[in-house]
Amino acid sequence: MAGNSIGQLFKVTTFGESHGPALGGIVDGVPAGLEITEADLQVDLDRRKPGQSRYTTQRREGDEVKILSGVFEGKTTGTSIGLLIENTDQRSQDYSQIKDLFRPGHGDYSYWHKYGHRDYRGGGRSSARETAIRVAAGAIAKKYLKQAHGIEVQGCLSQLGPIKAEQFDWQQVEQNPFFFPDLSKLEVLDEYMRELKKRGDSVGAKVMVVARHVPVGLGEPVFDRLDAELAHSLMSINAVKGVEIGDGFAVVEQNGSTHRDELTPEGFTSNHAGGILAGISTGQDIVASIALKPTSSITIPGKSINVYNEATELVTKGRHDPCVGIRAVPIAEAMMAITLMDHLLRQRGQNPHVEVPAPPIAASIC
Amino acid sequence: MAGNSIGQLFKVTTFGESHGPALGGIVDGVPAGLEITEADLQVDLDRRKPGQSRYTTQRREGDEVKILSGVFEGKTTGTSIGLLIENTDQRSQDYSQIKDLFRPGHGDYSYWHKYGHRDYRGGGRSSARETAIRVAAGAIAKKYLKQAHGIEVQGCLSQLGPIKAEQFDWQQVEQNPFFFPDLSKLEVLDEYMRELKKRGDSVGAKVMVVARHVPVGLGEPVFDRLDAELAHSLMSINAVKGVEIGDGFAVVEQNGSTHRDELTPEGFTSNHAGGILAGISTGQDIVASIALKPTSSITIPGKSINVYNEATELVTKGRHDPCVGIRAVPIAEAMMAITLMDHLLRQRGQNPHVEVPAPPIAASIC
Amino acid sequence: MAGNSIGQLFKVTTFGESHGPALGGIVDGVPAGLEITEADLQVDLDRRKPGQSRYTTQRREGDEVKILSGVFEGKTTGTSIGLLIENTDQRSQDYSQIKDLFRPGHGDYSYWHKYGHRDYRGGGRSSARETAIRVAAGAIAKKYLKQAHGIEVQGCLSQLGPIKAEQFDWQQVEQNPFFFPDLSKLEVLDEYMRELKKRGDSVGAKVMVVARHVPVGLGEPVFDRLDAELAHSLMSINAVKGVEIGDGFAVVEQNGSTHRDELTPEGFTSNHAGGILAGISTGQDIVASIALKPTSSITIPGKSINVYNEATELVTKGRHDPCVGIRAVPIAEAMMAITLMDHLLRQRGQNPHVEVPAPPIAASIC
Amino acid sequence: MAGNSIGQLFKVTTFGESHGPALGGIVDGVPAGLEITEADLQVDLDRRKPGQSRYTTQRREGDEVKILSGVFEGKTTGTSIGLLIENTDQRSQDYSQIKDLFRPGHGDYSYWHKYGHRDYRGGGRSSARETAIRVAAGAIAKKYLKQAHGIEVQGCLSQLGPIKAEQFDWQQVEQNPFFFPDLSKLEVLDEYMRELKKRGDSVGAKVMVVARHVPVGLGEPVFDRLDAELAHSLMSINAVKGVEIGDGFAVVEQNGSTHRDELTPEGFTSNHAGGILAGISTGQDIVASIALKPTSSITIPGKSINVYNEATELVTKGRHDPCVGIRAVPIAEAMMAITLMDHLLRQRGQNPHVEVPAPPIAASIC
Repeated sequence: MAGNSIGQLFKVTTFGESHGPALGGIVDGVPAGLEITEADLQVDLDRRKPGQSRYTTQRREGDEVKILSGVFEGKTTGTSIGLLIENTDQRSQDYSQIKDLFRPGHGDYSYWHKYGHRDYRGGGRSSARETAIRVAAGAIAKKYLKQAHGIEVQGCLSQLGPIKAEQFDWQQVEQNPFFFPDLSKLEVLDEYMRELKKRGDSVGAKVMVVARHVPVGLGEPVFDRLDAELAHSLMSINAVKGVEIGDGFAVVEQNGSTHRDELTPEGFTSNHAGGILAGISTGQDIVASIALKPTSSITIPGKSINVYNEATELVTKGRHDPCVGIRAVPIAEAMMAITLMDHLLRQRGQNPHVEVPAPPIAASIC
Repeated sequence: MAGNSIGQLFKVTTFGESHGPALGGIVDGVPAGLEITEADLQVDLDRRKPGQSRYTTQRREGDEVKILSGVFEGKTTGTSIGLLIENTDQRSQDYSQIKDLFRPGHGDYSYWHKYGHRDYRGGGRSSARETAIRVAAGAIAKKYLKQAHGIEVQGCLSQLGPIKAEQFDWQQVEQNPFFFPDLSKLEVLDEYMRELKKRGDSVGAKVMVVARHVPVGLGEPVFDRLDAELAHSLMSINAVKGVEIGDGFAVVEQNGSTHRDELTPEGFTSNHAGGILAGISTGQDIVASIALKPTSSITIPGKSINVYNEATELVTKGRHDPCVGIRAVPIAEAMMAITLMDHLLRQRGQNPHVEVPAPPIAASIC
Repeated sequence: MAGNSIGQLFKVTTFGESHGPALGGIVDGVPAGLEITEADLQVDLDRRKPGQSRYTTQRREGDEVKILSGVFEGKTTGTSIGLLIENTDQRSQDYSQIKDLFRPGHGDYSYWHKYGHRDYRGGGRSSARETAIRVAAGAIAKKYLKQAHGIEVQGCLSQLGPIKAEQFDWQQVEQNPFFFPDLSKLEVLDEYMRELKKRGDSVGAKVMVVARHVPVGLGEPVFDRLDAELAHSLMSINAVKGVEIGDGFAVVEQNGSTHRDELTPEGFTSNHAGGILAGISTGQDIVASIALKPTSSITIPGKSINVYNEATELVTKGRHDPCVGIRAVPIAEAMMAITLMDHLLRQRGQNPHVEVPAPPIAASIC
Repeated sequence: MAGNSIGQLFKVTTFGESHGPALGGIVDGVPAGLEITEADLQVDLDRRKPGQSRYTTQRREGDEVKILSGVFEGKTTGTSIGLLIENTDQRSQDYSQIKDLFRPGHGDYSYWHKYGHRDYRGGGRSSARETAIRVAAGAIAKKYLKQAHGIEVQGCLSQLGPIKAEQFDWQQVEQNPFFFPDLSKLEVLDEYMRELKKRGDSVGAKVMVVARHVPVGLGEPVFDRLDAELAHSLMSINAVKGVEIGDGFAVVEQNGSTHRDELTPEGFTSNHAGGILAGISTGQDIVASIALKPTSSITIPGKSINVYNEATELVTKGRHDPCVGIRAVPIAEAMMAITLMDHLLRQRGQNPHVEVPAPPIAASIC
């Protein structure tokens, strides 16, 4: 495949540059009969939208999504759904100065060498703006998962630079601009961000995503394991440098006697595995975390070169997020929803005869 | 896809249970003209083979691979390569007792609920024995990468439980049974493992894999990014719970001013990115790490249930590794090689016109 | 896959209903650096456009295609190309009467039973209007094939009802509204169509497509043979009921001594094979033919049922082609170009080392 | 994909050369719980086996298939099924003389130019021997289709050279070595074949395959239409030059008023469409036909060249079928079964909510 599609039975294909006329996508494989409107998609797009707080980029993108096909009289028809978001606030002039430069930490260098020709305006195809369509497609998946199977996907910012959430109050996540689950740390966060912005620097973040009420049995053995495909879809988000399932890297120092989730007739006694054993869901909560690097678009000058291999110094102007991890929360939810929906359809196609009582589930780490 | 294939142009499909008559695979997409023999594959199979040291399982698997097609007069023909490894040392009786039990931390529970019918002998398809074919297929990819492009893929054990490698002497890796790059800690490692074995417990591990001399430009934008597909292939290895590219989860606490790899006419000044920017290789070393959980097959009793949801206590007998991470080194190399080879063919198919001078590369973290 | 994509390295995904707001598509895998404009695509769209002659439907579709991404400063960037055609002339009221009816010979019945919910306006997704995006995508493939490799793809109407082309004057094909290569029969054709229209009936057709200057070696063994994938792409065109490569069904009565294309140092002495042996191109012209059924949208009443399984009689109103085969010529060209381009990229990815002198080619049937 | 796989959810991947040590395949995506034994597969392998009559090649291939994985205690486990057929009767010496020659009508020329290196023994990978594994995989699909859904797939030889079946007595098909449904013509057939063999020539054939009791709704819109994927899988059979669905090329001369299958409350009144409308099954019999070219392996001398482009004359020795179409009957059944099974799983994955009463079906052409 040429890279702009994800999924097998539920498949999302996207196009669009940050400063082109529009972004768009095709969502293929949604079963017929799902009630869906543009408003359903807009909710998540608005959560991802820049300009929501003083800590995210002040660009004003309308991000109004149109559904161009696949929905008739309010319900999906089973055919492909065309999505379109027109770009309305493009200040291309901001970028003309970096036409021949490689910004450190960006895809400029790798794109240039891969293609020999690139859309340098705002990162072009490598811009995080591309994720708007993922969020719209993910909103369709989320609605289907919820309506057809009661599955809920929710994300939060679990760490920003040195500040870690220690309590997970999921009700609070949507009540603050950081998607942060630990109310007690909001003030510290606010102060940290203000100071960071003053310095013109950026910082990394950790985002956790959880799926609840996932049936046992999703995921295919060996290569298409649910954890492998979640790693794929989550790592494909811009700026992500690490993916964990369940306890993640903490397992390196764990012993088998403490890591293994024991079973009782009342259910699992713990969820170190993050809801996946041997690549297949157990019916417990699916838990994944991702590490997002600090954006390289900062106002502190940095050394770089141009396409002629000449040394230069670079300051990124334009409007950028000091912590891209914050806006990544709805994107991570979208990618998990897309992967779960694909596996749900695949499992249904391949194992329709298996009807087992819901397994008892006692514990989750969230 | 039904789960047992990976890759697009270079595609590996496998079959086989730990206690069935044989394991096998089909390696499709190897260009014609590569010189390859069974001995080339056997080298890596022997590195993965159990029974190599007292810290890996004492099962004696011949692991002798046969090439059944796709090679003629010593060279690949361009058609699909059939691989076969017969299982010779299967003690199925070890497993009959756990026929109706779910071992905590294993795929027993999820497989049972997914399929309603499972091969319970030694984990069946979910056994790590399945990875033998990955290693054989990976050896083909490694040979091609090396011969056609000078690319080298090498892995090491970077941490075992609490013991971290602090020096990376890559020459030493193949000289000790732990694939450990830090000679100064071998004694501590040995002692730790002896004590662990006495307790009947297991421990997690961290494995690092590096690819050197990778050309700039591998990886497709958006969903088939090189890092996303590496995350997929590495997370598909049994027991892996986390994947990092470059600095991985350390980026959460980094600032943009320190994380970004600056560029000079002599090359990059650092490699925090792990050789991938915006999903596309930069020409620097590709660096990835994985977290492997401690095996759940331990002799310390654990609570579990049977298929009738009755409580039971379980002790895993049979022969198992106290740290599966050790043997994961050649497997991780294989998966990285498979993914790189697929992307190399895809890049060549899609961007043959781009001929740029090799970019300057100054730094790597390894 | 969910059905709306075709191709591996060169991949086309489409959406859109005949009476929705727009049709669109995503063309993925075009190498960077190809000069392309909307005008390049419009040429073929205009050839397919209804209302061109009195024998094709009088709907006036603007069919103006917009390129929304993937092209920068006049050249492709290597990223996905978004295409959009807005629907401007939709008379939905024509269709409200058949909301609950199944038109014989249409997809109404099968769509209804597959999805339980359908866009009944003008056939919705099953309308031939969907092929406009195929033609736009095919125009990109045609331009690339021509510019990068000198390959030309051309189609013609070789038979309409009982009237067969006996001479193939390819220069004449674009000079008449039938795409017919035999000038001597244009008058007979014209008369036949006038009479057919008067009767309110329709007729089938046969379309031939030829690709010239195709290099030897395109096509993968066994399942992804070039002929198999051409059969797939050509049979996916609405109304097609048969596909032939080279001599096609005539081979049933041929002997091996006459069918086999002999080889001399000057080249093949004939081209019964249609340029493909064992699924791989020989360097001769690729020749394929398709059979298109007569459209079922005719004004002669027919028996049918409604969704309540009640008998009814049906007359199709609206504006329809008496012979859909005529407009299928540019569509068939598009599908052949799409398949050839995909195989060209795949061959280049997998066999870059093979550099052989162009084989001698003496004969082609066209 | 690299060419040796077919299908999405039900996927078959194969390897093996005619004169290598073995043929094999991996059948992925069979739902768990299907009772299957090697004997189930052997039935169809024996139908395809050469040496069955004096009109098929006298090579004695054991063609004994082994199931190496994916079946436990007599039932499928849901994981990949490994198949192996060892080659036992290889007379490689028959072929050494044509090492540097291109046999007219064979893949020698195209393989040589594609790969620059080929297994010249008996056609290597391009040999029809490869289809043995298709037949074994198809037998699994046939059993599943029959057991889970009552679907039956059956083929026959409908024409051999000039001799057409005029009556279709499906009970007779398995009672004669020609798979011919018209008893009244068996004597003529026998005489024709005897005369052909004496002349050392070969002849083409037409094979029809029918699937009965297929539910309505199989097939995906636009590119993955059921007819398009059947065309793909049937055209991928060696020697096939044409594929028809329903009336096939006869539609070229039909009018819409006669072609369209009218509907009554008791069902369709005809089946010109071959059971597929707009790419989706209607619940009527699926009917497809294929044209098989006369084999080029004949004892009548023919002109050719060698790899040095020198003229030569060639007589094919060895043991070959005068009409390869005869043995193609079980292969065509296998390919139709494989494609139907894949679509059945896909439909089930994507449209599980649609539960409609079985549509009334009155007519079929067989």
